[in-house]
Amino acid sequence: MIKISVIAGGAGFVGCNLLPLLAREDRHLVVLDNLCRGREEYLDSARAAAPGRVHFIHVDLSDSDKTLGAFDSISKIGAIDEVWHLAANSDIPAGVSDSSVDLRDTFMTTYSILEAIKLYNIPSLHFASSSAIYGDLNGLQLHEEIGPLLPISNYGAMKLASEGLISAAVESHLKRANVFRFPNVVGGPATHGVLLDFINKLKTNPSRLDVLGDGTQQKAYLHVSDLVDAMLYVRHAEHLHKIYPINIGPIDDGVTVRFIANSVVERVSPSAVIHWGVGNKGWVGDVPKFNYSTAKLQALGWKPVLGSKAAVLRAIEEIYLQCLSQ
Amino acid sequence: MIKISVIAGGAGFVGCNLLPLLAREDRHLVVLDNLCRGREEYLDSARAAAPGRVHFIHVDLSDSDKTLGAFDSISKIGAIDEVWHLAANSDIPAGVSDSSVDLRDTFMTTYSILEAIKLYNIPSLHFASSSAIYGDLNGLQLHEEIGPLLPISNYGAMKLASEGLISAAVESHLKRANVFRFPNVVGGPATHGVLLDFINKLKTNPSRLDVLGDGTQQKAYLHVSDLVDAMLYVRHAEHLHKIYPINIGPIDDGVTVRFIANSVVERVSPSAVIHWGVGNKGWVGDVPKFNYSTAKLQALGWKPVLGSKAAVLRAIEEIYLQCLSQ
Repeated sequence: MIKISVIAGGAGFVGCNLLPLLAREDRHLVVLDNLCRGREEYLDSARAAAPGRVHFIHVDLSDSDKTLGAFDSISKIGAIDEVWHLAANSDIPAGVSDSSVDLRDTFMTTYSILEAIKLYNIPSLHFASSSAIYGDLNGLQLHEEIGPLLPISNYGAMKLASEGLISAAVESHLKRANVFRFPNVVGGPATHGVLLDFINKLKTNPSRLDVLGDGTQQKAYLHVSDLVDAMLYVRHAEHLHKIYPINIGPIDDGVTVRFIANSVVERVSPSAVIHWGVGNKGWVGDVPKFNYSTAKLQALGWKPVLGSKAAVLRAIEEIYLQCLSQ
Repeated sequence: MIKISVIAGGAGFVGCNLLPLLAREDRHLVVLDNLCRGREEYLDSARAAAPGRVHFIHVDLSDSDKTLGAFDSISKIGAIDEVWHLAANSDIPAGVSDSSVDLRDTFMTTYSILEAIKLYNIPSLHFASSSAIYGDLNGLQLHEEIGPLLPISNYGAMKLASEGLISAAVESHLKRANVFRFPNVVGGPATHGVLLDFINKLKTNPSRLDVLGDGTQQKAYLHVSDLVDAMLYVRHAEHLHKIYPINIGPIDDGVTVRFIANSVVERVSPSAVIHWGVGNKGWVGDVPKFNYSTAKLQALGWKPVLGSKAAVLRAIEEIYLQCLSQ
C-alpha cells in the first residue's frame, strides 16, 4: 500500500524546505496550495530527489468542498497517514486591517483540513502554529503552560483558534497532533518578512533604508533548516501525548531589528543611511520584546545548529542571492 | 443622547436574567437573537420594567451582512456604548458530531459582532466565554494563567477562538473587553442542560431515570442570578486591564451527577429508579473532574450568594415549575 503525506500549503517557504527531507522516506507527497505566495517550482528539488512521488494539486483550502474533493482524489492512490498543515496567511499587518484574510487563509483552511481528516480517517496531523498565539505578555517567558493566551493580531487569534479545533478533533477522532509553535523563521526562498523587505527596499533605493520603529525590538530567529529538522525530530519522537504543543526556536534571546538592518545594509548596500522610526513596535500586532522558552523541545534532546545571529546572517545571504537571480 | 446596550443572543437563558438588571439603568436595550433556543417572551419582564426601552431584532448573527444591517439600524437611534455577546450554540454534543454548528453559532457570531464593533466604534464588549476553553487538564486547578489551552469540544474550541479574536480587536480598536468564563450555569428559564434533561425524562417516564456515566463526575454549578450579578460587578469595576478574562463560579468544589440525579428524582418523581451508565464521562467533550479557580474574581471582592448545592436545588425548583406550566 502506498503511504501518502499531504502537505497543505506545501508550495511555500517552509514546505519548500520540508519536502526534500520527507521525500527521502518511502512515501508519496501530495502538495495542496492556492499558490497565493507559494510557487510550484519550489517543488522542483523534491521532485528531482523523488521522481514520480511528488504531486501537486492547486486548490483553495479555505473552501471545505474543494478541500474534500482534493482529499477524495488523493485517497484513491494510497493511504494518507499524515497531513502537514502549513497553509496560512503570512502577512500579519494585512490581517489586522482586514480580519477576513486570517479568517479565510489561517483559520478556514484548518477547518477544512480537519473535516477531511475526519472523513478519510487520517491518523496524524502536524500543524504550523505560531508564537503569535501568546500575544504580548510583557516580557514574561513564553512557555507552553502559560496563560492567558491573548493574541494581539488576527493572525495569532486564528492560529490559536486552529489549535483549539485541532485539540477538539484529537478528543473526538484524530489520533495524534503535533502543534509546532514557530518563532520568526528566516531563510530562502523568502516570500515575505523583514529581511526580504529590507533587501527589496535597498534594491529600489541603495542609499537609504527606512525602518519602522526605533530598532530596539528584539526577537528570536530560527533558520528554516533548523525548523524543519525540529519538526521531523518531534514527529519521530514516540511516547508523546496525543496532542503536543511545543515551542520551536533557538536557545538564545534573539537579535534586535537594529542588528538586522545593519547586517542587511552591510551586505547589500554598505553606503546606505538607515532612518529609524519612533517607538519599539513595528505595527499593530507586533510584539516588541520576546522571551521564548524552548526548554520543552530541548528536554526532548533537540537543539538548533544556528543561533539567531547566524540564522539571520545566513538568511540574508540566501535571500540576497535569490533577489539577484530574479 | 440615548445610550444603548446591544445584547447579542439576549433572548436566551442568560439574557433573560440579565435584561431586567440592565433595564434599571438609564439606557435602551436592543436584543439580537435568531430565536433558535431563545424566545421573545423572555423579554417580557424587562419590557414591563422599562416600557419603550427594550427592543428586539430577529437576526442571524453568524451572517456578517445581516449583523451589520442590524447595527446600522440601531446606530440611528442612539450611541451604542456596549455589546453583550451571549450568542452561541449551547448543545455541546451536537457541536462535537457536526463541527459546522459551533463554527456558525459560537464563532462566526463573534466574528460578525467584532466587525460591527469596529465599524460603529463601539468601546466595550462583554463576552460569555466558557470554562470549556481549558479542556481536560487532569484535575489541575483551572485558573486564568494556566496553559496549554486544549479544549476537548468544538464548543470549547470556538469559545477559545472567539477570545482570541476579541483579544486582537482590543489591540487594534476595541477599548475594553470583559471575557467571562462561565462554569455550568443553572436556573430558569432552562433551554438546555442536565436538569431540564432529567426533569423531561421523568415527565415521560416517572418510574425510571437513565443517566449517562456512573454519576461520579463532579462539577461546579452557579445559579444564573449569581452569574449575572458577577458580570455586572466586573463591568462596574474600574482599573482593570483592557482585556480581562475571568473565571466566574462558586467557591466550592461542585456537586456530582449522582447528587443532581437524586435531587431531581426526589423532587419530581420520588419512586423512580435511577439506572446508571458506565465510566465517568457523559459524552465526548465532557470533562469528568473539574477544579475551577475563582480566586481572581474573589480578589475583586465578589462572592456568590448560592453554592453549587443550593444553586442546583433552586434551579430544580424553577425548572420543574417551568415544565409544569408548559
